[in-house]
Amino acid sequence: MTSLVWQQELNLSPVLQKVERQILEITAGHNKTLGGLAARIIEAGGKRLRPLLVLLSGWKEQQDWEPLVDVAVAAELIHTASLIHDDIIDNAGKRRGLPTINSTRGNQTAVLAGDYLFARAFSLLSGRRTWRALPLMVEAIEAMCEGAIEEMATLFDHTQTEEDYLSRIYKKTASLVAACCGAGAEVGGAPPEVVHARKEFGRNLGLAFQIVDDLLDFSADEQTIGKPAGCDLIQGILTLPVIYLLQNPQCGGSIREIIAGRRCTPADFAYIKKAALETAALKRAYMKAREFQERALACLASFPPGPVRAAFERIAELVTTRKS
Amino acid sequence: MTSLVWQQELNLSPVLQKVERQILEITAGHNKTLGGLAARIIEAGGKRLRPLLVLLSGWKEQQDWEPLVDVAVAAELIHTASLIHDDIIDNAGKRRGLPTINSTRGNQTAVLAGDYLFARAFSLLSGRRTWRALPLMVEAIEAMCEGAIEEMATLFDHTQTEEDYLSRIYKKTASLVAACCGAGAEVGGAPPEVVHARKEFGRNLGLAFQIVDDLLDFSADEQTIGKPAGCDLIQGILTLPVIYLLQNPQCGGSIREIIAGRRCTPADFAYIKKAALETAALKRAYMKAREFQERALACLASFPPGPVRAAFERIAELVTTRKS
Repeated sequence: MTSLVWQQELNLSPVLQKVERQILEITAGHNKTLGGLAARIIEAGGKRLRPLLVLLSGWKEQQDWEPLVDVAVAAELIHTASLIHDDIIDNAGKRRGLPTINSTRGNQTAVLAGDYLFARAFSLLSGRRTWRALPLMVEAIEAMCEGAIEEMATLFDHTQTEEDYLSRIYKKTASLVAACCGAGAEVGGAPPEVVHARKEFGRNLGLAFQIVDDLLDFSADEQTIGKPAGCDLIQGILTLPVIYLLQNPQCGGSIREIIAGRRCTPADFAYIKKAALETAALKRAYMKAREFQERALACLASFPPGPVRAAFERIAELVTTRKS
Repeated sequence: MTSLVWQQELNLSPVLQKVERQILEITAGHNKTLGGLAARIIEAGGKRLRPLLVLLSGWKEQQDWEPLVDVAVAAELIHTASLIHDDIIDNAGKRRGLPTINSTRGNQTAVLAGDYLFARAFSLLSGRRTWRALPLMVEAIEAMCEGAIEEMATLFDHTQTEEDYLSRIYKKTASLVAACCGAGAEVGGAPPEVVHARKEFGRNLGLAFQIVDDLLDFSADEQTIGKPAGCDLIQGILTLPVIYLLQNPQCGGSIREIIAGRRCTPADFAYIKKAALETAALKRAYMKAREFQERALACLASFPPGPVRAAFERIAELVTTRKS
């Protein structure tokens, strides 16, 4: 995802490299055990979407990049910390094609590795030129915790609505994406109305991103997404296509029965996946992602045309066309 | 521990009540599930040592207490978050006489409850008048993570020295106590040399505090300390009396044998406790705590005599005389 910017006129490539170097310095250095564990996950990839959004949101001519780089690094560390803690919560065995920390080193080490990254992120955000990003990031972390607890509380709950789902994925994913866009603008010295518009862009982008992520969990193969397909449903997390299927007059009843049993075997998942393909459930969920993508693009209308806006538009496009 | 200040001329009682109210508002409000879980632990007591140190370190005549109250609340939230995560790491069943979150609600919920409290703490520390405390607190959290990982890495390791132990308890406990003293001074507007002296006081106080805590684990009964005695050793955490016992020419060999077996039964603990009482191991560890207490008191010498210094002296005394 980062390569798209190199093709623009923004010359962000050296700044993104600086972000990458700093992330690796933090995770590899200082405390060898905790940092090293996180380094493996970070090196295994990830789209670096959040750092990119921070940089683009704060972009201006003749920039002093230092504070924005710090915020971009902090954003990726917070994201990684939340993934590590999420893997404990989901009891996940794989992430980005690699075994998770909890699966190889136990929950205890995973708790600490996440806490350590949170602390390093806050250290970057406590500088004189970065602290204005802090309330935004903290608010996002609170929302992420609440989203995770809601997710746990609604496992296998077939009464949840599309609205419940959207509120939950806002908290779990879109809140941090919105915070990244707002934080970049804030630290870049933008006025409040611009900060607000950037956050709104990020919120809609984040919602589109997560719906597509959930669709990939449904339809992609293990090699592409780095974890087995159907993970969400097997764990009991109901995503948008399932919520739509439950409303389907033909197959809703049988699917409700599977889910009410609070257990979804791989065979059940195959049945549900087939139903989602045959009915319009997958397509309808994809159209919902497109709707949020459109809303994100509409938020850009108030920005002056130019390479920054073009880069944002390109990111918004990629979010619904990506395959992993 | 807080009552001692009410007897002083500082009139801190209304400020401490404000701290208490704000802690309960945060833990009871906003997110009912996560906050409520933490509220039970917070309401179950704890000495509120850290908030008290923040307030005393920042105390001056005709004070605007608001920023210091925020930092004091943040300190207690960080402490509580670290206890909740520690209980996951130690697989602990009880804390302050109550079942731990991990034991009743699972590791997953405990991870989130801790993260949520960290986030709320950083929210308080991101204000315009509190952010100067942030680097100190963040540094302490990093140290706490490192200390916890060292503790895990040295379970049942009979080769560890007194120096290893002191370095580990500095990270696990004294770093946050030092940060509280430094943060209060920093937010109260003290010059760098005063901030440094306060931190040094806190560091020595924290070391004395933790040695005594470890001694209480050895000798107190469950009713007094709110968890079964001998917990540390049964888990494999070697504290100062055990490190001294291992050096003892009479019983060192047999104790080394028990520990090398990486398993300490309640009967083994009873044997080791008896040895610690019969040899000078417990007394020697207690004298080490007294040594750090003396050093803490020496740090106070540079402060003007008066009610604040008297309160600090009283706290330092209580640290080695407390029974729980």
